[in-house]
Amino acid sequence: MGPGPSNVNPRVLEAMSRPTIGHLDPEFVGMMDELKALLNFAFQTSNPLTIPVSGPGSAGMETCFVNLVEPGDTVVVCQNGVFGGRMRENAERCGASLVLVDDNWGAPVDPQKLEDALKAHPEAKIVAFVHAETSTGAQSDAATLVDLARAHDCLSIVDTVTSLGGTPVLVDEWGADAVYSGTQKCLSCIPGLSPLSFSERAVKAVQSRKTKVQSWFLDLNLVMGYWGSTTSKRTYHHTAPVNALYGLHEALSVLKEEGLEQAWTRHAANHRALKAGLEAMGLELLVREKHRLPQLNAVMVPDGVDEAAVRSRLLTDFNLEIGAGLGTLAGKVWRIGLMGYSCTPGNVLYCISALETVLGSLDAPIQRGAALAGAESHLAAHPPEHVIA
Amino acid sequence: MGPGPSNVNPRVLEAMSRPTIGHLDPEFVGMMDELKALLNFAFQTSNPLTIPVSGPGSAGMETCFVNLVEPGDTVVVCQNGVFGGRMRENAERCGASLVLVDDNWGAPVDPQKLEDALKAHPEAKIVAFVHAETSTGAQSDAATLVDLARAHDCLSIVDTVTSLGGTPVLVDEWGADAVYSGTQKCLSCIPGLSPLSFSERAVKAVQSRKTKVQSWFLDLNLVMGYWGSTTSKRTYHHTAPVNALYGLHEALSVLKEEGLEQAWTRHAANHRALKAGLEAMGLELLVREKHRLPQLNAVMVPDGVDEAAVRSRLLTDFNLEIGAGLGTLAGKVWRIGLMGYSCTPGNVLYCISALETVLGSLDAPIQRGAALAGAESHLAAHPPEHVIA
Repeated sequence: MGPGPSNVNPRVLEAMSRPTIGHLDPEFVGMMDELKALLNFAFQTSNPLTIPVSGPGSAGMETCFVNLVEPGDTVVVCQNGVFGGRMRENAERCGASLVLVDDNWGAPVDPQKLEDALKAHPEAKIVAFVHAETSTGAQSDAATLVDLARAHDCLSIVDTVTSLGGTPVLVDEWGADAVYSGTQKCLSCIPGLSPLSFSERAVKAVQSRKTKVQSWFLDLNLVMGYWGSTTSKRTYHHTAPVNALYGLHEALSVLKEEGLEQAWTRHAANHRALKAGLEAMGLELLVREKHRLPQLNAVMVPDGVDEAAVRSRLLTDFNLEIGAGLGTLAGKVWRIGLMGYSCTPGNVLYCISALETVLGSLDAPIQRGAALAGAESHLAAHPPEHVIA
Repeated sequence: MGPGPSNVNPRVLEAMSRPTIGHLDPEFVGMMDELKALLNFAFQTSNPLTIPVSGPGSAGMETCFVNLVEPGDTVVVCQNGVFGGRMRENAERCGASLVLVDDNWGAPVDPQKLEDALKAHPEAKIVAFVHAETSTGAQSDAATLVDLARAHDCLSIVDTVTSLGGTPVLVDEWGADAVYSGTQKCLSCIPGLSPLSFSERAVKAVQSRKTKVQSWFLDLNLVMGYWGSTTSKRTYHHTAPVNALYGLHEALSVLKEEGLEQAWTRHAANHRALKAGLEAMGLELLVREKHRLPQLNAVMVPDGVDEAAVRSRLLTDFNLEIGAGLGTLAGKVWRIGLMGYSCTPGNVLYCISALETVLGSLDAPIQRGAALAGAESHLAAHPPEHVIA
């Protein structure tokens, strides 16, 4: 129950252990087509270029930047946590002229600030932001931010690593241009792949670059030759991670069987139960209610509590992982994930109960004895429609 | 029995299906340390920076180039096949001034040509070459090429994707500086990871760069913070591909149990049996005997034979994959892999027998009826010491 990897669905682990076949085998190519269709479903897009990048979310992020940014381009990066900072690093390493839109960690990206930046920089070509900040648990208004980018004739790059499968990611409805995600969060697949979708506008930008993409491995002009979009012919680029792709196919099938809306509802309901339990203990969440991600709960560490000792006890005594704070939030928050296969009422109650026990044993300033009842009564009143995926 | 992925050892598939744990979990960090030690063994090196890159061999190649090349550096790339060409692409995309040493496809890299190039370009900083060209099956003399690089004060980048675990890769004995490999060849692990080793000289070069590494994802200054070398503390960089790393740990354990010398002997012995069978059929190998890789056999397609039809029939009727030619060798050769777990006498005989049947049914100009006996008698006279890993 950390910020990911979440518990992997046993169906995914079983799929991963199937015999490896060739990355150009006709049977495998058939599975690739199914996988693309499942990704189109998950992202809610008809973009033909919707594929898994053969690397973790960081490689997906880099794929967006190296393909869309050319040296000297002005790129507006919105930063409200660690992963916005990583976007900034990516843009700079592509030779971009950087415009930073800064927001407090725990707050969403402020559309007004973005609009001001775009007005001040009419030469801007790209707007990049994180939809769901894994470092803080804040969700930004992707539809509005993408609209602003488009109104100022910019392409948008959107990080949905933690949102995909947990809260609505509506690539076509938003009109987003380059969207990437991860597999180890709400998809409950193994870590190591990065689902990605490029709009036709973004594809055109890649195809009409003046300079070569600085990464050969992530050059979509080449990757498209292997994953195909209009042709069934596949040209070898790199050896695909065959077994990991079996796993992603299975994870997306699980999501499709559950249904997107049902998955979103389940994440929201379990989050409210977790919140009820945490608040009954007297603990506070970092992010204001309106912008909270149900799947990533940043909990303020009470004064005087050694947060690392708590995590260590949870891991040792309860076999339970929760995450530490990153960057400026290190030592100040815990991050409790409720992602995909891990997002169940049973896990909510187990986590609340374990946390109360550990905090109690450390004489932390919390309300005692009320947490489990708080979460339970919430669950009884508002049961998640689907308990597990 | 194509050019990889090879058949994955069932022990590896089983390991892959174990429950995913956190990439910062103390148990996982312990496994990372074991994995590094196993890689040190496989590469025969004491380099502290010996780790798996979280992506396929192409990402390993790119890791070497983006970390060692700075814009304007002169890089000598030796090209005798597809993968030398990929190195050239990588060097160019890092802004290198390129010096190309060209050899025929199927021949090894000519040390004399490299020496001439180094004499003509005293400003050269890096020499890059492929030890085992997967596109042709030719092995180059890594020790000699690395010596030349060092004599001219260059760092060396060596591709051992197809050699590691199949023929000797002796990083410390060679004195190589940056060596990468793949997991899906002679290690018989799933595709998607790239073992990598950097000498202390290479690490110093990365640490004293004037410019930032153009890839954030592959920046070893950051990756080292997660994989560690002198400290047990691990700083989050990207989410490691946890399950794939379980698989690699198991694959390397299999290699250690068999022993490196034994694995090399097994590859050589099965190769000679395959060759005996192919030659009894009247087929020829592309590469001269002295430079042949036992694990990758490029077989000349007889005149008038539709090579794609043969591969298709092998796959459909015999469930047997062999590889097509790449680049200038497309349509001219097949590539038969004898890698890792796939490298067994049974597979040699099955392949010979299936190939003879298919070629016979297509009225190809081959000797009939002698192939299986040729391979069998060779195996009887020279049994591989270890039949399977």
